[in-house]
Amino acid sequence: MDFRGDPEILDILRTAGADVRGENVRFERGMCRRIIQATAPREFTYHARNPSRSVHFGGASAIFAPCAGAPFVFDLDGGRRYATLADTQKLHKIAHSLETLHTAGGHIAEAMDVPIPERHLHDVHDQLVLSDKPIGGAVNAPERAIDTLNMAKIVFGDAFVENNACIYAGLNTNSPLVFDVTMMGALKVYARHNQPVLVSPYILSGAMGPVTVAGCLAQQLAEALGGLVLTQLIRPGSPCVIGTFIGTVSMQSGSPTFGTPESLLGITVAAELGRRLGVPVNCAGGAVTSSKIPDAQAAYESALTLTTTFLAGVNMIPHSAGWLEGGLSAGYEKMILDSDLCGTLQIYSQNLDLSEEGQALDAVREVGPGAHYMGAQHTQRHFETAFWRSATADSHTYEQWSEEGSLDAARRANAIWRRILADYEPPPIDQGIAEGLREYRDRRIREIQAAGGRAQQGR
Amino acid sequence: MDFRGDPEILDILRTAGADVRGENVRFERGMCRRIIQATAPREFTYHARNPSRSVHFGGASAIFAPCAGAPFVFDLDGGRRYATLADTQKLHKIAHSLETLHTAGGHIAEAMDVPIPERHLHDVHDQLVLSDKPIGGAVNAPERAIDTLNMAKIVFGDAFVENNACIYAGLNTNSPLVFDVTMMGALKVYARHNQPVLVSPYILSGAMGPVTVAGCLAQQLAEALGGLVLTQLIRPGSPCVIGTFIGTVSMQSGSPTFGTPESLLGITVAAELGRRLGVPVNCAGGAVTSSKIPDAQAAYESALTLTTTFLAGVNMIPHSAGWLEGGLSAGYEKMILDSDLCGTLQIYSQNLDLSEEGQALDAVREVGPGAHYMGAQHTQRHFETAFWRSATADSHTYEQWSEEGSLDAARRANAIWRRILADYEPPPIDQGIAEGLREYRDRRIREIQAAGGRAQQGR
Repeated sequence: MDFRGDPEILDILRTAGADVRGENVRFERGMCRRIIQATAPREFTYHARNPSRSVHFGGASAIFAPCAGAPFVFDLDGGRRYATLADTQKLHKIAHSLETLHTAGGHIAEAMDVPIPERHLHDVHDQLVLSDKPIGGAVNAPERAIDTLNMAKIVFGDAFVENNACIYAGLNTNSPLVFDVTMMGALKVYARHNQPVLVSPYILSGAMGPVTVAGCLAQQLAEALGGLVLTQLIRPGSPCVIGTFIGTVSMQSGSPTFGTPESLLGITVAAELGRRLGVPVNCAGGAVTSSKIPDAQAAYESALTLTTTFLAGVNMIPHSAGWLEGGLSAGYEKMILDSDLCGTLQIYSQNLDLSEEGQALDAVREVGPGAHYMGAQHTQRHFETAFWRSATADSHTYEQWSEEGSLDAARRANAIWRRILADYEPPPIDQGIAEGLREYRDRRIREIQAAGGRAQQGR
Repeated sequence: MDFRGDPEILDILRTAGADVRGENVRFERGMCRRIIQATAPREFTYHARNPSRSVHFGGASAIFAPCAGAPFVFDLDGGRRYATLADTQKLHKIAHSLETLHTAGGHIAEAMDVPIPERHLHDVHDQLVLSDKPIGGAVNAPERAIDTLNMAKIVFGDAFVENNACIYAGLNTNSPLVFDVTMMGALKVYARHNQPVLVSPYILSGAMGPVTVAGCLAQQLAEALGGLVLTQLIRPGSPCVIGTFIGTVSMQSGSPTFGTPESLLGITVAAELGRRLGVPVNCAGGAVTSSKIPDAQAAYESALTLTTTFLAGVNMIPHSAGWLEGGLSAGYEKMILDSDLCGTLQIYSQNLDLSEEGQALDAVREVGPGAHYMGAQHTQRHFETAFWRSATADSHTYEQWSEEGSLDAARRANAIWRRILADYEPPPIDQGIAEGLREYRDRRIREIQAAGGRAQQGR
């Protein structure tokens, strides 16, 4: 594997016993696994500023996170358009309000009206202020990782951040088999400060990896091990997470395809490989689709992939809600629809109630053959809470549904996200902390703009 | 459990040792299980008139069957309307043409323009002529079961039918805890002639069963055991299948709801209970939905339920394609969209290719870090067959999709079923057999009409 542009990383790997030739590094069989297994934690707590929103990472738990990184947004009224800061703030508010999503979601979409060097300052600020769920950190430059850390420290305090997982840093390799200087720079910042680092290849099978599932899995494991070993060499015991993204491409057009059986197989086996390694597993097998709109294609691909990923025992599922168009677009309606699916899976995974009340033997005795349960005392006792209620599904009769305007699911979801935004109230925050975050954001933007001005004058 | 209106059945049960009081029958603990396990086959072959279409029933295999029993049909052009014989014939042609569906599908929809006493004659005829996949039998009267047997014998020969599973008979109990005279009549015909009998409760939790999952499962198991034991008492060794349908109801409106976590939990545990019994398992956890149209709701509910059912290891999955509106409507577009999902799951369940070619080690050596796999020899070798291709998904760019009319998935599916019907060619059949089937159908219709006329004159 190539580790490009970072002599410090090459020194670290050489010292650990790897065979370093230029920027190409070879590990003897089992070396990375041994180093990772020696010190990496199997499970940890991923902290939110609201302690009741903190989540367990690893073991039997699954964390559902919203989509990330889309340059476009889509809604039924405005269609597809470039995302703006106003959009990302709306999406943060919606993600915060949906109980079935567990994180503030990193950069849900790209605020294309904000210059790239300033974008992360808005995003981290908005995650910490508009939401009180656990946050994702900037990874696209070491100094942006430092900004994320500094802002987290304003909220959590310096010592707490150094000793606890407060920022999730999702790093991608450059498949095949390259770890680039940007990603290594971010990795060093987060690992040195004890923050959980995900190393996830992003492989489109047949393009950035072999055209076979087993070939992609071998590559995925090699790339992830090569990145994760750095976290333990830099700070033994710091939390790390093994990741996978295995998609497929259309052999006709070269476009990415989602919800394909090959990608599902990749996710399923990658989850097993991650458990074998013994660190938490992240699979970007969320509500992914190549559909441009929240139609049946979007729903089939999303439901199939999210269900399979969840049942594979994955611990962190990014892109669980909102993804459209192969990740190029974040959908307002799609986020609402997907969040219902997340809720269904979360309830599905709860244990069957086998208590006497759960077995309903008194009701069976009371009702008897050929009667009905609607009026049974047991039914009445559980009436309100028996079944998970979808916010978007319509189970009315055809006639009632027609009278109500024959709305499809996307149109119903449109009304829901509008109501969520209308009802949104920011989660409570200490005013001094809010002020500190705002000041940090604005000061750094001024510094970046001044430096940009100087750079421009220098040309 | 009540066995209503059939003294012969009560005699059979009494002789076997059950405690019969009037029409209510109690079985001592373990009695039904012991009788069933003593003689019922764990697996068998379900024969089609085209031997290459015969399927394995039980073990690790899953049979995907189209939807059944809808009085309405839906398509994008004609909307929702009563099904006609012309519709059922079109749907049989489509189901035959879709390679991911394994059966001719019984009565996919109800031909509402044909009187009920004649409907099964058209349906069985059309299954046997328009398709060459395994068929489902009429169960709504003993004489209609006999008609099905007689028509199967025209195709397979008398001795073959008596010795092999050629007709799948899907029977429902009248939940809670009633087996009615119609169903027992059909059961006796099929079991005596060695045809596979499914006994499946149809429980909407909170209405025809307790409001808790465990309560419904206890009821489901009791009803299924009470029915299945009859097959082995009537003809030991005849094939039988344990079935489940556990849905939920909206506690607001009383309408059935689908894709709920409670129904998924019911399916998952019912599949385990079936395996414990040791006969093949049927779960009506197909592509079920309460949506009226092939929108995102339909797709989420269908994909979630079908995926969960498949992964639960169910052997027969009825309603795998076409179901809309809680089963009241059979959708043309929905059948196309669902069949793609069936195909994805079927490929997903194939084993990972771990051969040297599957591991792609030569490609990994050839490509190396930072390059791409599009042009690799290994990619070229597998180019055409590497990935399952969905017929309905669009993975093109937003721009190309827009230029092509911004069609949603349902609209693309509309074009596909129209092309399937335009291209349809009936599977080859011996002309004498075809003639025999037609004659039988027409003669029986004349007899039924004459008897109906006499009955009318008699009033």
